[in-house]
Amino acid sequence: MSTTTFAAVSAVKRRSPDGFDADISPQWTIGGKPNGGYLLSLIARAAVAEREHPDVLAASAHYLRSPDPGPAEVEIETLRTGRGSSQVRGRLVQNGKTAVEALFTVGTLAEGEPYWQDGLPDPRLDVEPSFRVPGTTPLGLPVAIMDEIEIRLDPDSARVFTDGPSGRGELLGHLTLPGGEPFDPVSLLFAVDAFPPATFDISPSGWVPTLELTAYVRAHPAPGPLRVQHRAHLITDGRVDESCHVWDSTGKLVAQGTQLAGIRL
Amino acid sequence: MSTTTFAAVSAVKRRSPDGFDADISPQWTIGGKPNGGYLLSLIARAAVAEREHPDVLAASAHYLRSPDPGPAEVEIETLRTGRGSSQVRGRLVQNGKTAVEALFTVGTLAEGEPYWQDGLPDPRLDVEPSFRVPGTTPLGLPVAIMDEIEIRLDPDSARVFTDGPSGRGELLGHLTLPGGEPFDPVSLLFAVDAFPPATFDISPSGWVPTLELTAYVRAHPAPGPLRVQHRAHLITDGRVDESCHVWDSTGKLVAQGTQLAGIRL
Repeated sequence: MSTTTFAAVSAVKRRSPDGFDADISPQWTIGGKPNGGYLLSLIARAAVAEREHPDVLAASAHYLRSPDPGPAEVEIETLRTGRGSSQVRGRLVQNGKTAVEALFTVGTLAEGEPYWQDGLPDPRLDVEPSFRVPGTTPLGLPVAIMDEIEIRLDPDSARVFTDGPSGRGELLGHLTLPGGEPFDPVSLLFAVDAFPPATFDISPSGWVPTLELTAYVRAHPAPGPLRVQHRAHLITDGRVDESCHVWDSTGKLVAQGTQLAGIRL
Repeated sequence: MSTTTFAAVSAVKRRSPDGFDADISPQWTIGGKPNGGYLLSLIARAAVAEREHPDVLAASAHYLRSPDPGPAEVEIETLRTGRGSSQVRGRLVQNGKTAVEALFTVGTLAEGEPYWQDGLPDPRLDVEPSFRVPGTTPLGLPVAIMDEIEIRLDPDSARVFTDGPSGRGELLGHLTLPGGEPFDPVSLLFAVDAFPPATFDISPSGWVPTLELTAYVRAHPAPGPLRVQHRAHLITDGRVDESCHVWDSTGKLVAQGTQLAGIRL
């Protein structure tokens, strides 16, 4: 059962104009290593703290080394301040070494309906997910974060854990924060990296470390669980790209993610 | 007819350990504004100059302000040096102001065949493109870069220019550098942003400025023209995301791009 809230584990505390203290939770980890989207959210909290533009519109992170759970610092530098949007550089530092560096374009998300959409994956909203992703990977790695968040997979995707990979490279299901905490643009940056590697539906493997993660936040999410599709596309040369689409409980696409990760198969 | 080569217009000259001189070509522009992928390539040239790792694997750029054609500087900072890969921050500066900031993960691309792929767009390699994208947009904006590169669209996509938008939001065709210069990992960063906005297939508009661009380089491209699919997915709140897939002349997927851009419709 969850012992933390996302708001609490992603909080940062200002200690200088551009410096923040953070505390990386030992619970939001996979095999003891903090989740990459969670780390991006920590940096994003600092990037939008007390700034004119409250919402992250686009975030891109490169992962240098995995930090340990525990104290860390977030350092922020505003690159440009504009009326409609601004750009901010942020990095997560531990023991004097940068673990993650990220760039953000921040602005204000307007309410409203999409002007046009096409060629997006089908969220299959009529399917009811049931199987809860357990706190251990198919190869036995402990995944503490699954005791915090709740990921429920559609019957097709659940077979990855009950019967083995289908070969399609796709996981589809619902994501809920501890206690049903509503999502916001910052926690959507976590949402695009919350699911198990879509490659588990191709072949079980150890840790699939994110090298680069990009997220676009497209709208404020309505309360309720998110619908998430995580999908692998190409595995080559020891790396895989994965796309992630996130819809809110009204069926509106609220975030898109893409990542390049290392993989050993 | 082309008066420049990509190697020449994307060249940078070292003037200090981490500083380089660049010269932004007035020809590689849209309505006088330099192409975003071209600017990213300029920074990438510096990021891989004389380093242990010769290939860009992942690049993410945020665009702060459009620079003018002419002299500019590229500044590089190595964030981490590793055996298998390193991370580098780079920025393009003009008149003391940052125009583009980018993060790179660099390494060495191995030769070899994909381990697995699925859910990628169909490159429709059996279709022969014919229509050459002209040096003027549907709304009359001059596009000098189209006198340098050659983009030939498939018959379906060509109708955007001859008959008007189809509403599908997709452009598919071939990309060739001046004089048939072979592509490399750095010019692939340009390739993912070379096509006209896929939104021209939805509605004509003025400039569609890139806010964020992410590119993954997956393999060294074989010589010959690239096959490029540029596609819009969601237009909302004055912004559009576009994905780009790039195959080499052997049909191998060599690069993937995604961007968030501003749009007024």
